[in-house]
Amino acid sequence: MATGAQALLQTLLDSGVDTCFTNPGTSEMHFVAALDDAPAMRAVLTLFEGVATGAADGYARMTGRPAATLLHLGPGLGNGLANLHNARRAGVPVVNIVGDHATHHARFDAPLQSDIETAARNVSPDWVRTPTTAAELPGAGAEAVAAAMGPPGRVATLVVPADASWDDGARPAPPVQRPTPPVADDDVLATVARRVRRGARTGLLLGGAALSDEGLRAARRIADATGAELVAEVFPTRMARGVGRPSVERIPYLAEFAKVRLARYDHLVLVDADRPASFFAYPGAPSDLVPRGCTVEALVAPGEDTVGSLAALADRVGAAAGPTGLQVGDRPALPTGSLTAEKVCQVVGALLPEHAIISDEAQTSGVTLPQHTAGAPPHDLLALTGGSIGQGLPVAVGAAIACPDRPVLALEADGSAMYTLQALWTMAREELDVTVVILNNQSYAILNVELQRVGVRDTGDRARDQLDLSTPPLDFTALARGMGVPAVRAESAEVLARELERAFAEPGPHLVEAVVPSDFTGLRLKALPHALRVVRNAPRPIAEAITRRLV
Amino acid sequence: MATGAQALLQTLLDSGVDTCFTNPGTSEMHFVAALDDAPAMRAVLTLFEGVATGAADGYARMTGRPAATLLHLGPGLGNGLANLHNARRAGVPVVNIVGDHATHHARFDAPLQSDIETAARNVSPDWVRTPTTAAELPGAGAEAVAAAMGPPGRVATLVVPADASWDDGARPAPPVQRPTPPVADDDVLATVARRVRRGARTGLLLGGAALSDEGLRAARRIADATGAELVAEVFPTRMARGVGRPSVERIPYLAEFAKVRLARYDHLVLVDADRPASFFAYPGAPSDLVPRGCTVEALVAPGEDTVGSLAALADRVGAAAGPTGLQVGDRPALPTGSLTAEKVCQVVGALLPEHAIISDEAQTSGVTLPQHTAGAPPHDLLALTGGSIGQGLPVAVGAAIACPDRPVLALEADGSAMYTLQALWTMAREELDVTVVILNNQSYAILNVELQRVGVRDTGDRARDQLDLSTPPLDFTALARGMGVPAVRAESAEVLARELERAFAEPGPHLVEAVVPSDFTGLRLKALPHALRVVRNAPRPIAEAITRRLV
Repeated sequence: MATGAQALLQTLLDSGVDTCFTNPGTSEMHFVAALDDAPAMRAVLTLFEGVATGAADGYARMTGRPAATLLHLGPGLGNGLANLHNARRAGVPVVNIVGDHATHHARFDAPLQSDIETAARNVSPDWVRTPTTAAELPGAGAEAVAAAMGPPGRVATLVVPADASWDDGARPAPPVQRPTPPVADDDVLATVARRVRRGARTGLLLGGAALSDEGLRAARRIADATGAELVAEVFPTRMARGVGRPSVERIPYLAEFAKVRLARYDHLVLVDADRPASFFAYPGAPSDLVPRGCTVEALVAPGEDTVGSLAALADRVGAAAGPTGLQVGDRPALPTGSLTAEKVCQVVGALLPEHAIISDEAQTSGVTLPQHTAGAPPHDLLALTGGSIGQGLPVAVGAAIACPDRPVLALEADGSAMYTLQALWTMAREELDVTVVILNNQSYAILNVELQRVGVRDTGDRARDQLDLSTPPLDFTALARGMGVPAVRAESAEVLARELERAFAEPGPHLVEAVVPSDFTGLRLKALPHALRVVRNAPRPIAEAITRRLV
Repeated sequence: MATGAQALLQTLLDSGVDTCFTNPGTSEMHFVAALDDAPAMRAVLTLFEGVATGAADGYARMTGRPAATLLHLGPGLGNGLANLHNARRAGVPVVNIVGDHATHHARFDAPLQSDIETAARNVSPDWVRTPTTAAELPGAGAEAVAAAMGPPGRVATLVVPADASWDDGARPAPPVQRPTPPVADDDVLATVARRVRRGARTGLLLGGAALSDEGLRAARRIADATGAELVAEVFPTRMARGVGRPSVERIPYLAEFAKVRLARYDHLVLVDADRPASFFAYPGAPSDLVPRGCTVEALVAPGEDTVGSLAALADRVGAAAGPTGLQVGDRPALPTGSLTAEKVCQVVGALLPEHAIISDEAQTSGVTLPQHTAGAPPHDLLALTGGSIGQGLPVAVGAAIACPDRPVLALEADGSAMYTLQALWTMAREELDVTVVILNNQSYAILNVELQRVGVRDTGDRARDQLDLSTPPLDFTALARGMGVPAVRAESAEVLARELERAFAEPGPHLVEAVVPSDFTGLRLKALPHALRVVRNAPRPIAEAITRRLV
């Protein structure tokens, strides 16, 4: 017999959860103490809960398994919600362990008392549970892991009253068996096979597991056999890219361009992807991005085997055994001179190490990243699935813990970085091989575009001031050094290249602050609002030409 | 006629809300644009939502009026929840403005879509509303302000769909009238008057508005007339202290000492304070701190006039017109030599400027602050009302915005500071006169005590590692400079005194990192768990002697 906390830890390990991202408080002290009896559980301390939850997301993206988080009551969960939102949208498994007051303490409404379950439903709509005894706790833990694993993967939240942790009388619970996900129904395969027939203007919109190496290869076999086109969702959970992989373009973020990109299809087949919709709504603009009259079918239902279903479809359409047209090596030349955001993307494309993991939260500064890294060595891209900024650095932490033998590159925007910058400390503490590039343009640049997209024409000083990060300027090299991460500033492409090479060659974390203009590609960002108005109203060939030029 | 956002801003101004702490995104762009038409609204940009919500809390504590926050959908609210929890526990008014997708966009379940209202209920259980048209928005805004003002003050959350902001056809709504809070019932006054009669061992437990200068003076008049004792709640929203005020001790944070402190009473009268309970529960220890057989009465019900009720009680017990025994000037001598946490508190007591506002989140390092500042010039103390750390720096921002003519001192612990360190950037941007002292002991020191209090006897390396912040060490001077705040490190009392004097004399923000041992008062913190065990079991005179010695 063991304490509830000891039995919970053993249950997590038996269920395949061996990593925990923590920011504990008093109500979690028995869980912390039980770490001494469970040396197989790696506990990674963070200074802020959003780092812990984002790291669990990154870990799950790279392993397919949940990490646990350890959070302190309602406020600790609150601090973790933004990145749990991204994890929920990523469809990855995460098991939150949220400590609560002892059951007999609740009636005193002590200062830290709050309605944890209600807050948790924002990110864990399907599975929130509060066992009230030590005996119940391990079983609930095993169920939390199963619920998180799905499929589909989800965020499960286990609220743990302190007395359920500290009381004796608990036994580890066995893992909960999960069903093997089935492939898509035969009827669905038949329908989709008709849609992708040669001559039909069909797009396969790939998301989720369809963007794995295996998924992409099966999808490309289908495209080879039928002429259907492949297109990827805007913000993939994890996308296999680079040499030897099928190269697939993502739908542009901006709805105006996305509409143009999708206009060529009469049929759209969703493969583990949502029906394409505008990220935000804009006055007078439709949110739905599906062209008028275009049919939409889903190949897989939630919980079905995406890769298996793609393979089955490939066989059904008589595809050849292997895909054609895989990406060949093709790196950009190293640029020179003063940095721009595009040059940063070129330097990354030129130097990216093999099997790198890119955590991409570069926002406006990263628009040209896909084109410049398409022909880089094989790598994985992790994107901002839920649109909640502050994700990139924590996801990089989790990816580095998950894959200690792979280099991790975090591409960060200045504004986004400041939400969860505490991730740098954990990188230093755990000696993670993460290279952080901060593209510092001293503004919330995307909002300058959005202000005009939502219909605001004449922006005054007071409004513009809300998007400006230049007063005072943020010095990311000082911030990094303050958390134990060596850091340098780069204002030229040459310095950036030299420092990136050094960072990739040395173990442990490094930060390079890349100083870029706030209108990074000159014409491009400044001209964007005007171009978007033209694209909205122009005949299709003109709109397509502008879109090809700009994204 | 105006857009919904314009009419909402005018409504807020008409209702007395003229300050807004912001971290906007696309769905808030019309609100941002409307700032140009509402120059009376001060918009203070923050880099993280927890800074915005904590600043609104600090602002409300000092003005008695709500500030608005401007937050971006569910994740933005999530990032703000921890400090909204503290604001809820402080009983102060806050009006959250949370942007949401346009009403017609919700059905597309775009990436940032989530259940905002549910998450908001964690901190706004009484008032969450989502108007769906521009015409409804201003009226809902006026009601939000009234709901926030109460009394009692509370967090009201107004969810604003983007189209309700951008649509035309709205008119500003008039302020919602609020009732004047009544004084306590005559029956209650009569009952309490009997409890405080001379010879009864009665404690008046003061909280909320009872800790204002006026409240304290009325309470002291009652004590003078009846022999009742005054004691203050553990973590006051705002407490008037220093020369010329009645000096009142707070109940100790640690339940063991609190029980001893309260054991002397046969009657306890709650004055805008909760029934005293242990902050956390501990195995085998009762949560209730009220002595066995002690009666408990509340002088005021929620929404009643605390200061007026105290004055009425003073009159009823025949108190003299003015209080006696007001605090006289009595500052500690400036200490010398290597810093300890107690020496930091002594330096603060020796140098605190007149009318300072102290935002206290020094945790274990601040235990001796009350004794060393009791005889300082008049000042206000703002404490960690909800126990959710990361409050001190944001509250200092809000207090400085509220009171531009008063010096603000933020006493911070290293662990707590790292939750919302982004507050430093707003201090620099707004040139706020805030002096930040970080007491850096390189650990979550309180948790070393709590580990043992919850009954963990033999702590191993893996558990201890979860409480350690020394690897890598945090360099707060680098972190501060990275956000534009001048900073120095102090390892001796002399340097700290010199740098504090300089910081108080110069305008704008300053940070001093005070390097202190992790067992700050040597004997005291290390011996604490043992002392607590003795206090739990010892006869009362011994327990009282230890308590007097230690808190």
